[in-house]
Amino acid sequence: MFPEPLRRIIQLLSRFPGVGEKTAQRFALYLLTEPKFADLLAQELAHLSDRVRPCERCGNLAEVDGRDALCRVCADPKRDRSVLCVVARIADLLAIERSGAMRGCYFVLGRLLSPLDGIGPDELPMERLLRLVDQNATREVILATPPSVDGEATALFLARELTARGLSVSRIASGVPHGGDLEFADQITLGRAIDGRRRVE
Amino acid sequence: MFPEPLRRIIQLLSRFPGVGEKTAQRFALYLLTEPKFADLLAQELAHLSDRVRPCERCGNLAEVDGRDALCRVCADPKRDRSVLCVVARIADLLAIERSGAMRGCYFVLGRLLSPLDGIGPDELPMERLLRLVDQNATREVILATPPSVDGEATALFLARELTARGLSVSRIASGVPHGGDLEFADQITLGRAIDGRRRVE
Repeated sequence: MFPEPLRRIIQLLSRFPGVGEKTAQRFALYLLTEPKFADLLAQELAHLSDRVRPCERCGNLAEVDGRDALCRVCADPKRDRSVLCVVARIADLLAIERSGAMRGCYFVLGRLLSPLDGIGPDELPMERLLRLVDQNATREVILATPPSVDGEATALFLARELTARGLSVSRIASGVPHGGDLEFADQITLGRAIDGRRRVE
Repeated sequence: MFPEPLRRIIQLLSRFPGVGEKTAQRFALYLLTEPKFADLLAQELAHLSDRVRPCERCGNLAEVDGRDALCRVCADPKRDRSVLCVVARIADLLAIERSGAMRGCYFVLGRLLSPLDGIGPDELPMERLLRLVDQNATREVILATPPSVDGEATALFLARELTARGLSVSRIASGVPHGGDLEFADQITLGRAIDGRRRVE
């Protein structure tokens, strides 16, 4: 159906998250009708890894500047270095940054414990996390892994490791989202909303 | 929020059809976690326009081979050259090929008449179409532009031009799709299904 070079591009494009064979075909046909766009994208992609890298401290996005790659948060002297927020993915960090609720620093795990996928505690970047805790003289760690099975397991493991080192550890609240409808909330979310209730003063 | 090189990639990626800002951000973050994938994609994209081009006769996808770029359909001597199927886009051609219902050749218009977008008859590739009609000694033209306002207007215009040159011109049927439910079909589709009824022998 497709010429071989186009078939290879379709196969590559379908590796993007949420993109199936059909969508990748649409993207590929669009590339053919816009050859200038394809060339521009090729150029930007070819230089991406030289220009943007994970921050060497926390794993956030960092623009490469000379030899160092420090993200905007780690480079900002106004950030509260005593508070560290641990997240699973860069996308989660960006979401928290958008909320404006975090004045401390971050650490991106990159993965979660997942016994089913064979990801055990040894696969977590504990050494880098503890180094950052030392470097920043962190006092409080906020565990902001997602409220899923893997996210909870990872939070539990990290809480155990970090409290043993004398750190104050907290977990983000889980409950009915803002604007959410109780009628359509699932049982576990409602259970957490009740369990996590706060006294109204 | 994003380093400048990544922001540029997000802007480019959001030009893919159906991809918004958010999806482009997800794609970009995926590229960062898979630098090898980004490099591979960059290479394939850089060579795409040298390797795949529109067929010089019909506008279908063609792998470039030496100097010529002929598509599989135009290069196939078993195809019935007396029948020409005119479509709006390559994706439509591929859909018809998948159906296996077409034994003739194709012509891809690349655009439809669209007075609102300022696309008039002069913007249609009439010269190339008529050249192919001559070259193939076409007798029948099947107009397979989509059953939309622009598609119908284009079919009407082409029918007038082509019948004036003594060609037999037909339009693909429009009606309730196979497996479709009459209850949920819109009025225009049902009207066309009734108008286009065929006597049962």
